[in-house]
Amino acid sequence: MSPEDRLKELGLTLPAMPTPVATYVSFKQVGDMVYLSGQGPRRADGTYPTGKVGADVTVEQAYEHARHTGLGLLAAMKKAAGSLDKVEVVKLLGMVNAVPEFSDHPKVINGCSDLFVAVLGDRGRHARSAVGMGSLPNRMTVEIEVIVKVHS
Amino acid sequence: MSPEDRLKELGLTLPAMPTPVATYVSFKQVGDMVYLSGQGPRRADGTYPTGKVGADVTVEQAYEHARHTGLGLLAAMKKAAGSLDKVEVVKLLGMVNAVPEFSDHPKVINGCSDLFVAVLGDRGRHARSAVGMGSLPNRMTVEIEVIVKVHS
Amino acid sequence: MSPEDRLKELGLTLPAMPTPVATYVSFKQVGDMVYLSGQGPRRADGTYPTGKVGADVTVEQAYEHARHTGLGLLAAMKKAAGSLDKVEVVKLLGMVNAVPEFSDHPKVINGCSDLFVAVLGDRGRHARSAVGMGSLPNRMTVEIEVIVKVHS
Repeated sequence: MSPEDRLKELGLTLPAMPTPVATYVSFKQVGDMVYLSGQGPRRADGTYPTGKVGADVTVEQAYEHARHTGLGLLAAMKKAAGSLDKVEVVKLLGMVNAVPEFSDHPKVINGCSDLFVAVLGDRGRHARSAVGMGSLPNRMTVEIEVIVKVHS
Repeated sequence: MSPEDRLKELGLTLPAMPTPVATYVSFKQVGDMVYLSGQGPRRADGTYPTGKVGADVTVEQAYEHARHTGLGLLAAMKKAAGSLDKVEVVKLLGMVNAVPEFSDHPKVINGCSDLFVAVLGDRGRHARSAVGMGSLPNRMTVEIEVIVKVHS
Repeated sequence: MSPEDRLKELGLTLPAMPTPVATYVSFKQVGDMVYLSGQGPRRADGTYPTGKVGADVTVEQAYEHARHTGLGLLAAMKKAAGSLDKVEVVKLLGMVNAVPEFSDHPKVINGCSDLFVAVLGDRGRHARSAVGMGSLPNRMTVEIEVIVKVHS
């Protein structure tokens, strides 16, 4: 089954990509590697879920935010590679906006990692770090950046 | 106009590069990719502006610190590539030493991103994440690390 | 002297590698580059030293934790490359679970950087950032991720 078929089966639609409002870009390709800019769980109206995971936000809620962030990253991968059929995820940095004593970062970032494997199969498996930030833009709950390889 | 001419027009001079005082190096090249070690807004006397952005330090001040950090990174790129004419910025990780409720990380890191585009033109555009750290070395306000491509 | 001989001379043994309990992997190779997942100072029984560096944990203790983390990363490098003889460290991101006013991150992460140079010689030298996180998984004191090159 193709990644697009898997998305359909999961009832998921890739979001439209927002235009970065600064001197950076959504992704940059060098050879067959693509570096994606960090993304958060952006809603269709441009707002984000906010708050500190471990206080205002539960692990379960943040898992959903990480999954939603993953959809935006898949949209950027598709735009970069032309098709999700060519994409292999290499490295993920999962950043959680958490309270200082938070300890379940992996359970949060699994929301994105699980989605990548569900949609891309074995090519969705990646090296990763899942860590806690002091703060994030827009006070959003998670931000994730990814490096992918584009197969020809 | 060449990057060196643009620097001159902007009235900017690249700083001298400090020698890392440990078992790491300022940059490392693999093929045509160069990984730069993280830098902060180091003054000529070796000190840094300190404090928490969003409390002790304003967004406008931190923008200038990020811009100043960018100058140090350009100096490292020049040393690595031999000339700024060959440098393309690929990926930037902008780290802000902010209070937990800070939300304007992109506005801070733009200080570095804007400088790269002003000096390198389109080759200065990059993928990036701009995020908030719990703390930074020397209590400095920002730290930025970059991956660049060297054109032959 | 080979890296394995240096390990022996230092009285060090590489730990067994834990299996990631999620949809990510311990390392991922693309061409001659290997991206290692972030690791912490995991004890043989699967537990970690915990606490905030600068409050519950001293710089000296955290240096040892970073060194111990480096051993786990060497184990992953060896598994990825087949032999430590082929490994060159390119880039390190050292993350310290510290109090907001902490400033000695480089002294902590030196524990890992020093080990890499002691075991791998000049090929152990790397670009790096050493920074402070708001929180880390399992409340562990340090987490380190690395990019390495595999020589043929």
